[in-house]
Amino acid sequence: MTAVQRAAAAPAGLAPVVAAGGRRGIGVGELTLSGGFWGTRQQVNGDATLEHCLSWMERLGWLANFDRVATGTTDECRPGWQFSDSEVYKLMEAMVWQEVRTGDPWVSRQLAALTARIGAAQDEDGYLNTAYGHAGQAPRYSDMSSGHELYCTGFLLQAAVARFRTAGPDPLVEIARRAADHVCREFGPEGTVAICGHPEIELGLVELGRALDEPRYVEQARLFLERRGRGLLDPIPLLGPAYFQDDQPVREAEVWRGHAVRALYLAAAAVDVAVDTGDAELVDAVERQWTRTVERRTYLTGGMGSRHQDEGFGEDWELPADRAYCETCAGIASVMVSWRLYLATGDVRYPDLIERTMFNIIATSPRADGRAFFYANPLQQRTAGTEADAEQVNPRAEGGLRAPWFEVSCCPTNVARTLAAWQAYAASVEGDTLTLMQYATGELRVELDSGVLVLQVRTEYPAAGTVELEVVQTPGPRASLRLRVPDWAHGATLTRVPAPGHATDPGRVVDPGWAVLDDLRVADVWRLDLPTAPRLTWPDPRIDGLRGTVAVERGPVVLCLQSRDLPGAPDLTDLCLDVDAPLADTGDGAAVTLVSAADRPARPGHPPYGPAEVSGGAGRGSQHARLVPYHSWAQDGPTAMRVFLPVATDVGSG
Amino acid sequence: MTAVQRAAAAPAGLAPVVAAGGRRGIGVGELTLSGGFWGTRQQVNGDATLEHCLSWMERLGWLANFDRVATGTTDECRPGWQFSDSEVYKLMEAMVWQEVRTGDPWVSRQLAALTARIGAAQDEDGYLNTAYGHAGQAPRYSDMSSGHELYCTGFLLQAAVARFRTAGPDPLVEIARRAADHVCREFGPEGTVAICGHPEIELGLVELGRALDEPRYVEQARLFLERRGRGLLDPIPLLGPAYFQDDQPVREAEVWRGHAVRALYLAAAAVDVAVDTGDAELVDAVERQWTRTVERRTYLTGGMGSRHQDEGFGEDWELPADRAYCETCAGIASVMVSWRLYLATGDVRYPDLIERTMFNIIATSPRADGRAFFYANPLQQRTAGTEADAEQVNPRAEGGLRAPWFEVSCCPTNVARTLAAWQAYAASVEGDTLTLMQYATGELRVELDSGVLVLQVRTEYPAAGTVELEVVQTPGPRASLRLRVPDWAHGATLTRVPAPGHATDPGRVVDPGWAVLDDLRVADVWRLDLPTAPRLTWPDPRIDGLRGTVAVERGPVVLCLQSRDLPGAPDLTDLCLDVDAPLADTGDGAAVTLVSAADRPARPGHPPYGPAEVSGGAGRGSQHARLVPYHSWAQDGPTAMRVFLPVATDVGSG
Repeated sequence: MTAVQRAAAAPAGLAPVVAAGGRRGIGVGELTLSGGFWGTRQQVNGDATLEHCLSWMERLGWLANFDRVATGTTDECRPGWQFSDSEVYKLMEAMVWQEVRTGDPWVSRQLAALTARIGAAQDEDGYLNTAYGHAGQAPRYSDMSSGHELYCTGFLLQAAVARFRTAGPDPLVEIARRAADHVCREFGPEGTVAICGHPEIELGLVELGRALDEPRYVEQARLFLERRGRGLLDPIPLLGPAYFQDDQPVREAEVWRGHAVRALYLAAAAVDVAVDTGDAELVDAVERQWTRTVERRTYLTGGMGSRHQDEGFGEDWELPADRAYCETCAGIASVMVSWRLYLATGDVRYPDLIERTMFNIIATSPRADGRAFFYANPLQQRTAGTEADAEQVNPRAEGGLRAPWFEVSCCPTNVARTLAAWQAYAASVEGDTLTLMQYATGELRVELDSGVLVLQVRTEYPAAGTVELEVVQTPGPRASLRLRVPDWAHGATLTRVPAPGHATDPGRVVDPGWAVLDDLRVADVWRLDLPTAPRLTWPDPRIDGLRGTVAVERGPVVLCLQSRDLPGAPDLTDLCLDVDAPLADTGDGAAVTLVSAADRPARPGHPPYGPAEVSGGAGRGSQHARLVPYHSWAQDGPTAMRVFLPVATDVGSG
Repeated sequence: MTAVQRAAAAPAGLAPVVAAGGRRGIGVGELTLSGGFWGTRQQVNGDATLEHCLSWMERLGWLANFDRVATGTTDECRPGWQFSDSEVYKLMEAMVWQEVRTGDPWVSRQLAALTARIGAAQDEDGYLNTAYGHAGQAPRYSDMSSGHELYCTGFLLQAAVARFRTAGPDPLVEIARRAADHVCREFGPEGTVAICGHPEIELGLVELGRALDEPRYVEQARLFLERRGRGLLDPIPLLGPAYFQDDQPVREAEVWRGHAVRALYLAAAAVDVAVDTGDAELVDAVERQWTRTVERRTYLTGGMGSRHQDEGFGEDWELPADRAYCETCAGIASVMVSWRLYLATGDVRYPDLIERTMFNIIATSPRADGRAFFYANPLQQRTAGTEADAEQVNPRAEGGLRAPWFEVSCCPTNVARTLAAWQAYAASVEGDTLTLMQYATGELRVELDSGVLVLQVRTEYPAAGTVELEVVQTPGPRASLRLRVPDWAHGATLTRVPAPGHATDPGRVVDPGWAVLDDLRVADVWRLDLPTAPRLTWPDPRIDGLRGTVAVERGPVVLCLQSRDLPGAPDLTDLCLDVDAPLADTGDGAAVTLVSAADRPARPGHPPYGPAEVSGGAGRGSQHARLVPYHSWAQDGPTAMRVFLPVATDVGSG
């Protein structure tokens, strides 16, 4: 059976997350993208990014680390950080989804080869890690705070889950099973009471338990989860226990804090465990944390994590545009949490945030050619970055440039696996209802309770707000369709497109939330019109870093101003936006409005504070400026950039 | 000869910095403080802080590290960071100044004991470091990027300079001489071409060279300085070469960048070397860097270093109030640079910034009892910190609480040596002119070219703006006095206080800068009146983190609002300042004005961004609020705090 055949045979299982309960996400095989915003990116991901990641890991010796364990030739010199194995597993997961979607034989060959290489490095008892426990290395689990061994194992398990759901029993699945059994022996009820400094193993264990029907794995995940927040981890110098969420049990926390990716992987795992163990209190806890975090600790882009220092969340309202860390992996992890909360609760807020994060973080990271990535995603770049050297590993992405690879290179492979499985977050099924949440051109062929529903989706979303849905096949009258009307789409309309010769349907206004279509008839075409005129978006005045500024959005896309798009590439420090000027839609996803240079105080050689109030704008040299999608910024070269622009008026007058 | 006798005998030499050229700072013995703002702090420093630092270093084994080297009992377990020796030397320098000012026999005994302990740990060839080069330790100079060996030696040399200038030849001086000779052999023209990751050795070498008349030491400092900025240092993971200013030669840089304390120690040393080698270009370079940094990278408090991540400078205009790092040591280092630039150029901008930094950073760090310290000095504390545990080492001071000691505990001993020698930064002498720059109650007894000038200074500065200067003794008609009129003191007046029965002197207005008194007659009393009414201070609109806010200052003192000073300790996030309300002077250094709660958007469960503009204030519940000196914040317990308050008006309206 080919991968494609397998995908056709078992679509319902082809998803990274298959939670208990009546609602399931669609499988990656149930939606075929044909170009468009996401289809194009998925194509580039498959054509370029997978090979790019593989070749970097080969070049840097991260793959050879497995061979050295397999051949017993390890020593104290090992290239890569202690967690570099995890990148291999994330890439393998990406390859699994790519293979099943495309049947690409190159991908199949690489996947088989990687499986053999990692399998050869697995110890007899199931332990699999190239940084610990072998000649010249520190002992296994000798550094639970920073060793990342269980973190790496978690990604191995997730890759194996993808493999099992698309290929059934397989060497990769067996490697993961042995690894999971080893973890359960080592850290189970009879084993060492410990946790890993970086949550992730929990996610892998729950999903592998679901896939293989092994409740022991889910139970082990629950154990890890419940042990956390009780000070089991040795502190890392200069960082407190909140850094790895060991300050407070997960069900007691009010908000996410500390290292953002850690906090979010942990929250995602908490939802998984809660759903599988029927722990409503724990779901409530994560919803509460999500709500407070989204209300007070989340950027307009959906980005999470304000601080560079610990790659962590800031306090409430601590959302500076320039030093926004907004790690790409945190965006991915945020989608993982929201997706699990959606499956658990059905609340439309979760796919709303997923869309925001997809378009403005996940789509922002990769360069158009799929061979360089943003690690951090600030909302303001004061000075143009330097063009990244295609041959150099970047020490740490400070924002400003997409780099081909990083010393800590978690983001590229995480982007790869997320784009390869993008479909999984687009729609869900509950009984005979298909809920479509993310709009992309393609064909949905989805298994409902009473049979297969086939829809053609035609849209240029997000460049245009019109989504046409043609019913190609229905399983019968019980089938229904729910469409997400995004929270920004006030005044959206839903219309039945009249068949030739029929009367025009006036359509109906649909409010943000869910729009339901109960009457699906073959050949009917429905049109959802989402208003995508550029609009001003104002920050909460409690966000100190954004006071007196405004942003422009267009549909789900945050826009920004690049210095390179203005004559002479001026210093953006000087520019204010005239909020009374019209916001013109350019028709290609951008907008044009007026900006002008602000007034300036002049006390050269003195501190930038003085007795005179200085106007914030309404100043000199009003000019038209093109605001482009944030996800496209710096694609054409280094540039200064701002999402929020000071308002052109007297700011701070009494 | 007692210490006090020595101080009386050689006042001109009693200063940490004695640069070449005609202008010298006064010695610590030339100004005797009697209470007042700085006198009180100096007293607490002597009575409590010195003992506090000594006992913590004894308790933590940082002193025993020297004994272990001396007795050949080192092993791989050594308490403290690799740079803990430096704290001992800074404390010793503080003790030297304390001894010479007070003759305190406890201090003399401790100093002698410490000198013996560190001397016993010195290797035959002059190398003195407890973290490298002995049994169980890494080899000497095996980690130039992070080893900090030369950094430690620099503080040893500075302590010895203080000792030599107050006591002449002495065991501590001989220890330093051997250490300096070792450094010159090891890293001189014939030695290893290397530099230390943390500048500081340069400062010690120049000053020891000046004190002992050893041009080799100055030349060695020059060598280190010129080698820097050429990529000699191995990068530290995740940090670029700018972190330790190895990105660019010091004379080519336009602005300070990277780790703030490193950048500032380096700049101070550059001025020293430039002055002693007649290198005008190098002085110009540091002045240029100072100017750009003060204009664009300095906080209202004089604090420098915006970023927690690398304890570093941000980019231009990157001055967020909440995440202001403003390390106490960076404030001290800034004073060191400005002082050297003042001595080199005589520009009044430098003592202006010194005053700002003294009152708002250096005075802010220690708790009133001298036994706890701020490490970071943010201008906004969103949530009240937790009361520091008097027995616990703080992992890292995030701001919000003064802690008794830190894992990296550079600030307490740096505060100690700075307060112990505070006089050295108050005035300077050039020929027959005394320039008084910092105002404090006490007696000046200063050696001018033609003899001794004695002045009584009476003031409650900064609580009051009046400074009375009584001429007690003059060396003759050539003596003159220059007074600094601070850059904020518009409308200051200088008046001769009439003798009883004489006509009232109308006084004259003196502009910011220098006010000169040429006619000094014994028993004359002059009065400088500096206007200290509370005033609004507006930030440059290019500072994104402060847009739409305003601060209140009073004389040289930045004020702040503490939540604990308001009924119910409300969330300061809600409060705006009414800039039209009167600012009332409370007479005790504080001010009272009106604040009110801002309007709020209400979209619970959604991101804090929306289509509606939200008013920034002019809101609910106007109330009187007391604004207190920033240096006193959290002295009475944990509290939220803001220096810059949002302006109570519609912010961001079109």
